[in-house]
Amino acid sequence: MELTNITNPRFLKSMSKEELIQLSANIRQFLVEKLSKTGGHIGPNLGVVELTIALHKVFDSPKDKLIWDVGHQSYVHKILTGRANEFDTLRQYKGLCGFPKRSESDHDVWETGHSSTSLSAAMGMAIARDLKGTDEYIVPIIGDGALTGGMALEALNHIGHEKKDMIVILNDNEMSIAPNVGALHNVLGRLRTAGKYQWVKDELEMLLKKIPAVGGKIAATAERLKDSLKYLLVSGVFFEELGFTYLGPVNGHDFDDLFENLHYAKKIKGPVLLHVITKKGKGYEPAENDKTGTWHGTGPYKIETGDFLKSADQAPSWSKLVSETVRKLARTDERIVAITPAMPVGSKLEGFAAEFPDRMYDVGIAEQHATTLAAGLATQGMKPFLAIYSTFLQRAYDQVVHDVCRQNLNVFFAIDRAGLVGADGETHQGVFDIAFLRHVPNLVLMMPKDENEGQHMVYTAIQYDDGPIALRFPRGNGLGVKMDEELHAIPIGTWETLREGRDIAILTFGTTVPMALEAAEKLAKENISVKVVNARFIKPMDELMLHELLESGIPMLTIEEAALMGGFGSAVLEFAHDHGYHQAMIQRMGIPDRFIEHGSVKELLQEIGLTTAHVVDRVKKIIPRKQKRA
Amino acid sequence: MELTNITNPRFLKSMSKEELIQLSANIRQFLVEKLSKTGGHIGPNLGVVELTIALHKVFDSPKDKLIWDVGHQSYVHKILTGRANEFDTLRQYKGLCGFPKRSESDHDVWETGHSSTSLSAAMGMAIARDLKGTDEYIVPIIGDGALTGGMALEALNHIGHEKKDMIVILNDNEMSIAPNVGALHNVLGRLRTAGKYQWVKDELEMLLKKIPAVGGKIAATAERLKDSLKYLLVSGVFFEELGFTYLGPVNGHDFDDLFENLHYAKKIKGPVLLHVITKKGKGYEPAENDKTGTWHGTGPYKIETGDFLKSADQAPSWSKLVSETVRKLARTDERIVAITPAMPVGSKLEGFAAEFPDRMYDVGIAEQHATTLAAGLATQGMKPFLAIYSTFLQRAYDQVVHDVCRQNLNVFFAIDRAGLVGADGETHQGVFDIAFLRHVPNLVLMMPKDENEGQHMVYTAIQYDDGPIALRFPRGNGLGVKMDEELHAIPIGTWETLREGRDIAILTFGTTVPMALEAAEKLAKENISVKVVNARFIKPMDELMLHELLESGIPMLTIEEAALMGGFGSAVLEFAHDHGYHQAMIQRMGIPDRFIEHGSVKELLQEIGLTTAHVVDRVKKIIPRKQKRA
Repeated sequence: MELTNITNPRFLKSMSKEELIQLSANIRQFLVEKLSKTGGHIGPNLGVVELTIALHKVFDSPKDKLIWDVGHQSYVHKILTGRANEFDTLRQYKGLCGFPKRSESDHDVWETGHSSTSLSAAMGMAIARDLKGTDEYIVPIIGDGALTGGMALEALNHIGHEKKDMIVILNDNEMSIAPNVGALHNVLGRLRTAGKYQWVKDELEMLLKKIPAVGGKIAATAERLKDSLKYLLVSGVFFEELGFTYLGPVNGHDFDDLFENLHYAKKIKGPVLLHVITKKGKGYEPAENDKTGTWHGTGPYKIETGDFLKSADQAPSWSKLVSETVRKLARTDERIVAITPAMPVGSKLEGFAAEFPDRMYDVGIAEQHATTLAAGLATQGMKPFLAIYSTFLQRAYDQVVHDVCRQNLNVFFAIDRAGLVGADGETHQGVFDIAFLRHVPNLVLMMPKDENEGQHMVYTAIQYDDGPIALRFPRGNGLGVKMDEELHAIPIGTWETLREGRDIAILTFGTTVPMALEAAEKLAKENISVKVVNARFIKPMDELMLHELLESGIPMLTIEEAALMGGFGSAVLEFAHDHGYHQAMIQRMGIPDRFIEHGSVKELLQEIGLTTAHVVDRVKKIIPRKQKRA
Repeated sequence: MELTNITNPRFLKSMSKEELIQLSANIRQFLVEKLSKTGGHIGPNLGVVELTIALHKVFDSPKDKLIWDVGHQSYVHKILTGRANEFDTLRQYKGLCGFPKRSESDHDVWETGHSSTSLSAAMGMAIARDLKGTDEYIVPIIGDGALTGGMALEALNHIGHEKKDMIVILNDNEMSIAPNVGALHNVLGRLRTAGKYQWVKDELEMLLKKIPAVGGKIAATAERLKDSLKYLLVSGVFFEELGFTYLGPVNGHDFDDLFENLHYAKKIKGPVLLHVITKKGKGYEPAENDKTGTWHGTGPYKIETGDFLKSADQAPSWSKLVSETVRKLARTDERIVAITPAMPVGSKLEGFAAEFPDRMYDVGIAEQHATTLAAGLATQGMKPFLAIYSTFLQRAYDQVVHDVCRQNLNVFFAIDRAGLVGADGETHQGVFDIAFLRHVPNLVLMMPKDENEGQHMVYTAIQYDDGPIALRFPRGNGLGVKMDEELHAIPIGTWETLREGRDIAILTFGTTVPMALEAAEKLAKENISVKVVNARFIKPMDELMLHELLESGIPMLTIEEAALMGGFGSAVLEFAHDHGYHQAMIQRMGIPDRFIEHGSVKELLQEIGLTTAHVVDRVKKIIPRKQKRA
């Protein structure tokens, strides 16, 4: 059948196993072709083709609730619920979202992007069901990587205690984004290798019957042993201990195995954990053979070879610049220890890990632990370098406040993907970090205008020993500027004037510096003289320069690729009024008070009005007389 | 010996068991007496007297690291490390902190207040130790309640995987603040009741030798069974599965048992979990018999009877006002479900729980799960009421952003203990919530001026169906105002003028409203006419009123008991400049950019300059000419 003709998953009910196998092949071919052009999360989706089909055949979505953890593995679900014809627009501006989206379909009952939320959401839905007296199945699908996130473990603990009916599908592919780590991962590994040991249980009972009756202690022991059979390793004791009925492991690419276990799971009272083994990238060789996570999410690629289509951009990636600079410094500074919450590839830490295997810790999807682990290291005189995405640092806000900043510890936060990130969309935009960090006492927060300043800021952060310091930098590549050979520290809280001007001062930092310079260039042609200040320290600000600017009475425009509320522009307003400059003409540009959906960064900046043209317009509005004179 | 003569814990090394028992009795007597006057965390500390003594005898603090999770159980540790003579000032302004404090003693190696951080900190210290090649023991002491916090579970997962040497003391008293909940709690319960089953292991091995050799499958099974012995319930399989050596359960009030196991734990490679059973309140009858958590932390009490000394204040507590109003509304609104992360007593939810046992969920110390559980409920048309302290909501920042506000779900956040909390100090001050919530799209944030407005705001929150809504309210009691019989909704985003005035407008909300009115009264006597606005909606603000005020050109003073950076005053500045009011005279009062230590709220407000007198002074500075005229 044509995938684009699907309107809802009911057609699956009447399909034979052979037809389902054919459908799986069609879906794989469709995904490999479509994603070769748009890019996307190819590996995770190829891994769940049979599982998703089986879930939609056995359950009745949207009455039954399929809750996709993280959500990047929901493409097959999107195809089966009538969205195949939108895949040409996948992750593009105003196009199909790369994650579940409630506005797209009734079958998307929960939106995600960040990991480990599905079990809590499922518990909420189960409580609601039981209070309303309805009978839908609640089916969260969570990966083995997401399961190590603290909130998923909190939820397991609660679900196991309350014994609500729920079928948790553990999609175990041994990788989340990078290969998984953690003791829980080892538990799953043992379960996987144990294979099918239902027979062991039967054999053991036989065996116990043969034990000679000896009375007293031994008999009691034998009895206890019988009771404890279910706790044997082979039966998923870890989950049974937590109050779940453990089923599996199930071959996630075998319909018979899937159907048998899903039907069985439906009959069990209380929470069930169905352990499904899948293979990431299944059916497309380059993705299937991936060992590092390269094929987790990709840009466009050549189908025949699996070669990625290179972008023209040759400047170094920001992640690599930062991690390689830290690596260089680590050669002479033994205090440096790198920490990543499951992003060794994204944060380009492979080089550091290879050179300093004892000084690099991938803690799995566990941002809270990562942050306080860094704090613990810092108490002992070490210099932890925590590489973390802006959007995921949200998970560790309390640890930043309570553990790191309150104790004023020397933790270096390297905040990657700050600002708009593009195709991943609203769950991943790194636009709140300034607003949620600026008010935290003791923290230094900076952002470089280009990669050369970036490397000096890394050096600055490593040298700085007076407390926590954070360097935010954008997704993607640098500008291709000349790099200095020697690194030097930038005095904390100092800004620099990049261009002198009389009519207005633009205060900005990071990605919007080039925009400001370009606007100044254009405005100069209209006889408007713009001063451009690189406000590279968001906190503390350059108070000397601020006093000078405010005393001069020059109008000011702040620009930031970050949420306006509580952001850098607000800091400038606060400073002006706190110091009695009540006549100051200060305007702010940045990200408005709403969530920003997916699209290219360029399109999004256009949508929110953060381009050179918008800056030019704004400046003209601020100084209209000047404009008239010109 | 006199406890006040202790300077460090070395004296313990030469003490006999009999002397230690006597010392324990002395410490208990000391604590019961001192705390009867100052108040404090009596229950938790009476429970760890022998354990703390044993730890300081077996380990060499501060070389060995004792890391107290949560930290309110560190009083015995403080006595043994030379701070007994400071207990008269416990939790008082400039006095002894109720939590570990690095500036107080070298023996306090980690500061806490929030729960579940100790394991991550310990892991950081263990990594640092191994990189530096030193040999200290790392000993985190964590309660069974704190263990359910997601970050503790993240840390367990990492520690078990890395196999670092570490001795985790699980202080299992079956209660954290309230009786504990969760599947993990049930696991511990089984371990506790299993008692001492080392012998079972020996007997089982004997038993297995008696099994007739039958060859083939059975033999393999028997072999597997032997390998799996350690996985039997009685040996702490849950923790063994995670990579720990489990020891226990140990009687936490028996020195022989403690010493034997602590010495044994020191010899084991890799992480050890030593399960110690203690009794909260041990040795003081009223605290020992406590079943609800009343004796977790108390004010002053009468030693002989255990009666609490009542404060003169008879107004209803804010927590009770809010939860009882919700309870009333829940009688006719079946959508309401109450959620608390381990604070049923603190949030005064006993009444709600008794009346609606099926609609009340205590999820344990798990703020992340609590928040997303609420989101899940809201997707199904329910109206979750999440009662949570301001400081603990910090743990769920990402869940507020990503799960609740991004999906614009109808969750009602009742943010308790907002503003300064007093004796608990800097880890517990609820001063950041405005700054970390204001920039989150879709959220309504409000604070009432008194308990009557508070009850109407509860009604408003329950009626509101356009997305998330948060009500912040302070610790302690209301003002004792008259309460309306009928509840009504307050239009979202509307302020009210409480007093008209010509010379300056004070914009404030919540606890600082009475302060503003009092200041206005005083200033009136000096011929300064002050307008006082109850800015009860922090977001969205009353734009109509703001335009009126700004157009009138009246100077404005904002006052908030919250962090100034990014707070309400900043919102007013943003509004003024965004709307072109660049001449506006706006000043802000609030909490400066540093952490605020413990003390009475009154003392702290005096220290930071947030009193009626300070308001009067500030107003006079803003309008000096007026002052001269008067």
